[in-house]
Amino acid sequence: MSKATVYDAVPVFGRLRDTVLYDDVWNQPELNKRDRSLVTCAVLAALGKNAELEHHMKLAVENGVAVDELRGLVVQVAFYAGWPCGVNAAKSGMALFEANPPKV
Amino acid sequence: MSKATVYDAVPVFGRLRDTVLYDDVWNQPELNKRDRSLVTCAVLAALGKNAELEHHMKLAVENGVAVDELRGLVVQVAFYAGWPCGVNAAKSGMALFEANPPKV
Amino acid sequence: MSKATVYDAVPVFGRLRDTVLYDDVWNQPELNKRDRSLVTCAVLAALGKNAELEHHMKLAVENGVAVDELRGLVVQVAFYAGWPCGVNAAKSGMALFEANPPKV
Amino acid sequence: MSKATVYDAVPVFGRLRDTVLYDDVWNQPELNKRDRSLVTCAVLAALGKNAELEHHMKLAVENGVAVDELRGLVVQVAFYAGWPCGVNAAKSGMALFEANPPKV
Amino acid sequence: MSKATVYDAVPVFGRLRDTVLYDDVWNQPELNKRDRSLVTCAVLAALGKNAELEHHMKLAVENGVAVDELRGLVVQVAFYAGWPCGVNAAKSGMALFEANPPKV
Amino acid sequence: MSKATVYDAVPVFGRLRDTVLYDDVWNQPELNKRDRSLVTCAVLAALGKNAELEHHMKLAVENGVAVDELRGLVVQVAFYAGWPCGVNAAKSGMALFEANPPKV
Repeated sequence: MSKATVYDAVPVFGRLRDTVLYDDVWNQPELNKRDRSLVTCAVLAALGKNAELEHHMKLAVENGVAVDELRGLVVQVAFYAGWPCGVNAAKSGMALFEANPPKV
Repeated sequence: MSKATVYDAVPVFGRLRDTVLYDDVWNQPELNKRDRSLVTCAVLAALGKNAELEHHMKLAVENGVAVDELRGLVVQVAFYAGWPCGVNAAKSGMALFEANPPKV
Repeated sequence: MSKATVYDAVPVFGRLRDTVLYDDVWNQPELNKRDRSLVTCAVLAALGKNAELEHHMKLAVENGVAVDELRGLVVQVAFYAGWPCGVNAAKSGMALFEANPPKV
Repeated sequence: MSKATVYDAVPVFGRLRDTVLYDDVWNQPELNKRDRSLVTCAVLAALGKNAELEHHMKLAVENGVAVDELRGLVVQVAFYAGWPCGVNAAKSGMALFEANPPKV
Repeated sequence: MSKATVYDAVPVFGRLRDTVLYDDVWNQPELNKRDRSLVTCAVLAALGKNAELEHHMKLAVENGVAVDELRGLVVQVAFYAGWPCGVNAAKSGMALFEANPPKV
Repeated sequence: MSKATVYDAVPVFGRLRDTVLYDDVWNQPELNKRDRSLVTCAVLAALGKNAELEHHMKLAVENGVAVDELRGLVVQVAFYAGWPCGVNAAKSGMALFEANPPKV
């Protein structure tokens, strides 16, 4: 099931995603997109939202986060949100990690 | 009660904080300290750990995060972890916010 | 694996479900069944218990909650528990949403 | 510290509360205000946001939720989100409960 | 505000605590009281229910859990539920820890 | 995907698991391995980490926890962390429960 379908099924939700979350919140000047991605991935990892995290890790790389920085995020999350959150964050990033071996 | 007292009361916990969390995890090269602070603040805000967040927001500023970036983090967290997490994150940052009016 | 099997596997759990949760708590007069369903769906959505939410959304409709009211619940939850909880609540309700287009 | 101060401290957050959360989300037709209050209280209780819950329980009564219905919500939450969430929800409602003895 | 007052304010909640939680669940033979205390403290620590944890740590000692075992629980929780849960669990046990220096 | 693969993908995470979590934390004398298993299962059940719980329930049995004790843990968790956490903990233990009928 695509997210588009979900937003189609609840039209108010889709409208708020388009006009508020994507066109407003993500574009505010206080925090750039690269850092919003880092914050969003950290939140999703801490809350165990693994499917959303997988999506946002890919978006984070598009927004300028290095794959090794996501490796660092996995470990930092493991200590501050608990080991299983780190394990699941690592699983969400597996496609990225396998395509990009560690450089540091 | 100071955190030092807590770690004194559970010596193994204090040892692991000093040797693993502070001297090892925070110093790994995958993610720099400024970004570790950003990730840590996002995790603490998402999990509602408000006292720890207040401490780590101050540490984040020492590590190079701008106070306006913490304002951006508050809003990003409000949308991804829920409005009350945003409200409480803002409360944890009030001393910083009052001393540093918005620049953007 | 059916829930019946789970309660069979832990007999005390099954007994408490039957005699306490279903025959006592759900029948107390303070809150009617339609509202207990609304509360239960909100709790399950906030805690990310998606499989249980899918079951309770269907039960909510049997108890008198309109499918459009569940659409409203999805959006309300997204703001108070975080966007991914809204997305997952919408996924749990997809069968209901697809069979019942918006009326308002 | 008042919430007004918090929203003053992070102006984008205050703008989004006024224009999106209060003037848009809460006014959507899918779910009436009385039911949005019930859903919001259930979410806040499940997430342990006790100060926000105390505020929203009072608002729920203004929106037409009976105090006895909040008693029912406390018990329903205790079973679906865990006993401590029920205890803390009851604490958040103490002023209302003491001023309004049970009628059912 | 005492917990007794909370249960007085929501009489159904008080009845269920007395007849189900205390007189039934805690007395089931599958798990003895010492181990139920250990499990309960672990759950409360993981969920950040610090006031309830402080109460249940004292009850755990009455049920035969050693204070040093609670020290071990703090560290185990810190790794599996995240560092701040360990810190707050240690705070909940401070009175016990200060009155009972480590023996191992 | 095996956990080994995950730790391979984030080498620092694998190193910390081997040297800190397994070779240090789990071997500390304050809490024996049987009780660490009980605490870990309770934490994982409360946090809804079902795949990890399935693994740790099997490890708990190896460390001396009886399968009936895990049945007791399921019910205790259901009351303190909420009914869906109990249901999911029971699901995580189904293979053990089916192979070991209740003895008490």
